[in-house]
Amino acid sequence: MHAPVEFADIAADVLARIRRRAPRVHCITNSVAQQYTANMLLAAGAVPSMTISPEEIDAFVAGADALLINLGTFDIERKSAIEVALGVAAERGMPWLLDPVFIERSPARARFAHELVSRRPAVVRLNQAEFAAISNDEAADAPARFARAHATVVALTGKVDVVDDGGRRMTIANGDPLMALVTAMGCAGSALICAALAVEADAWLATIAALAAFGVAGEVAAAEARGPGSFSIAVVDALHGLDRTTLRARMKAS
Amino acid sequence: MHAPVEFADIAADVLARIRRRAPRVHCITNSVAQQYTANMLLAAGAVPSMTISPEEIDAFVAGADALLINLGTFDIERKSAIEVALGVAAERGMPWLLDPVFIERSPARARFAHELVSRRPAVVRLNQAEFAAISNDEAADAPARFARAHATVVALTGKVDVVDDGGRRMTIANGDPLMALVTAMGCAGSALICAALAVEADAWLATIAALAAFGVAGEVAAAEARGPGSFSIAVVDALHGLDRTTLRARMKAS
Amino acid sequence: MHAPVEFADIAADVLARIRRRAPRVHCITNSVAQQYTANMLLAAGAVPSMTISPEEIDAFVAGADALLINLGTFDIERKSAIEVALGVAAERGMPWLLDPVFIERSPARARFAHELVSRRPAVVRLNQAEFAAISNDEAADAPARFARAHATVVALTGKVDVVDDGGRRMTIANGDPLMALVTAMGCAGSALICAALAVEADAWLATIAALAAFGVAGEVAAAEARGPGSFSIAVVDALHGLDRTTLRARMKAS
Repeated sequence: MHAPVEFADIAADVLARIRRRAPRVHCITNSVAQQYTANMLLAAGAVPSMTISPEEIDAFVAGADALLINLGTFDIERKSAIEVALGVAAERGMPWLLDPVFIERSPARARFAHELVSRRPAVVRLNQAEFAAISNDEAADAPARFARAHATVVALTGKVDVVDDGGRRMTIANGDPLMALVTAMGCAGSALICAALAVEADAWLATIAALAAFGVAGEVAAAEARGPGSFSIAVVDALHGLDRTTLRARMKAS
Repeated sequence: MHAPVEFADIAADVLARIRRRAPRVHCITNSVAQQYTANMLLAAGAVPSMTISPEEIDAFVAGADALLINLGTFDIERKSAIEVALGVAAERGMPWLLDPVFIERSPARARFAHELVSRRPAVVRLNQAEFAAISNDEAADAPARFARAHATVVALTGKVDVVDDGGRRMTIANGDPLMALVTAMGCAGSALICAALAVEADAWLATIAALAAFGVAGEVAAAEARGPGSFSIAVVDALHGLDRTTLRARMKAS
Repeated sequence: MHAPVEFADIAADVLARIRRRAPRVHCITNSVAQQYTANMLLAAGAVPSMTISPEEIDAFVAGADALLINLGTFDIERKSAIEVALGVAAERGMPWLLDPVFIERSPARARFAHELVSRRPAVVRLNQAEFAAISNDEAADAPARFARAHATVVALTGKVDVVDDGGRRMTIANGDPLMALVTAMGCAGSALICAALAVEADAWLATIAALAAFGVAGEVAAAEARGPGSFSIAVVDALHGLDRTTLRARMKAS
């Protein structure tokens, strides 16, 4: 079940590049997640920005290395911001990730997510319920089909994460149940994938590296946490201190 | 001063039901409080959602089991969201709680709170200054009168919490002074009452259960905190780990 | 390098006054920073409020003792709120601080910051990149010139903080590199300066006191932190517990 050492090394290499290059990640994300997402990016070595103001979103995105589109707050201002941001990203060939939070609960949000998928996100990260709502496909190879149809990488997260680009598939079995008890944990994981996309051109590898680092940080944090509060803080510490040895010892991918 | 064991047991039962049923609580709350509130609900075993978008608020509220209306951010978008949300809640007989934050500082906010009280909240949770602003009544039995007049439960929180439904009154003397030094602590307590309302039809009992659990969690957290920062985290841990034995040993109600 | 004991005592006195008087600080700040800023103010002994609603911003500012204007979220609603808030502050002679976050990344934000500087902030707090964008002046005495030209105090923060009112200059060499890895840390520092402005009429002294207390709290926190997550929490604890002896032992100003 342990990944070939090479994948743990790829994850360590990607983390090292994030720390060295300090890529800028512009995040259009929900107000619940902003603070935790920014702190996770800073802990990883990246530089977050969060504005959605129509007067300046273009300047911020133009200066960024990757873009996060999270639908957790679905308001008019954010929709306009997304429109502008995706225009700038397309112009510059900047990688972006779609995190269609809670689309299974809102038809309006699901429709908007569908439109966005057609605009070539490098990665779509979502959980099972969200994937069911966006794909209408319950087959075992649904992620591969969806990835091929939309020329993207599907990162289907849960107890085991599946990363599929339509041709290659990897499962990652790291993480801890406490991760589900901290708000914005998944949103922060998506932001970490964005930081990886900024320093690794192969979006499939970047996603694997980020999710493995995130899951391993969760395991390290769980070992010392006394509940979801201290866990939420310990994950940030663990990601900041994560090293190659720990990744090699703990990464479980296949 | 210790409550008859039955009240501690009721609190433990309500917590157990929240953990087992994982009720959805939709929160229209201020941007300062969103993250802490969501983490407190998750720690208790409930599932928070926070959107205020006009396109989807109805779908989110329709799928919820209880509704929180917190006036801490009083903007146009939230006012429209509240209007829609209360319509859905009324239709479905869903319990909702009003938390009229800081109404003593703003006449506009106080007027709006007055209107909302007439729409049958299951509970109104507020502190002394807020209660004075909404009731214009300083008599000792003002909470009972207010509760009767508006067919609601008044949860008047402070050093000692008073829970009065116009016929029954209970005071709860749990908690810790550090709770006043953490932003959104009261807002998170209101959200916890909502989670209790979702699993306990007697709103007076639900409120007592939630406030007792919250206060006891605060005491447990204070025992290990080194200041308001570590305390804010420890409360989340303590609520998550709270058990019947601790509630029986610590709950002080009369 | 240690400050004459008198400056450490001034910082301790200012902190003591904040704790005793509990000044109200109204914060128009970005959504990423709201929670951390509020918790830092509460830890210091001040009382934060955060509304930007057009219906009530005037009432909140009128009841405040100092005002924070942070440009980290630059939207239409906040711009209107700033307009109203500055009117009330001017009428009442209330001190206010401008924190022109990230103006080097956005021409629109930079233009707005320029306008605000002409409206007599008591203090402008910014980092090197932000100062370069607002002053177009790279000379060693640029802060002094800027302070004189705009009749304000410049608080130029970084590894070493410079506080210059055009006539007096002090450098403060406290703090810890972890402070740069926590989102909203600078914003929270600006809020702390506002709390100091509310209790100390000499804005230069107030700024020195707040930045020294903040930096020393950072050092105390770093000694026990395991990474940026636990550090962010420990700073709040440390500020809350900060005493005269620690300030005397650690404050490095010259």
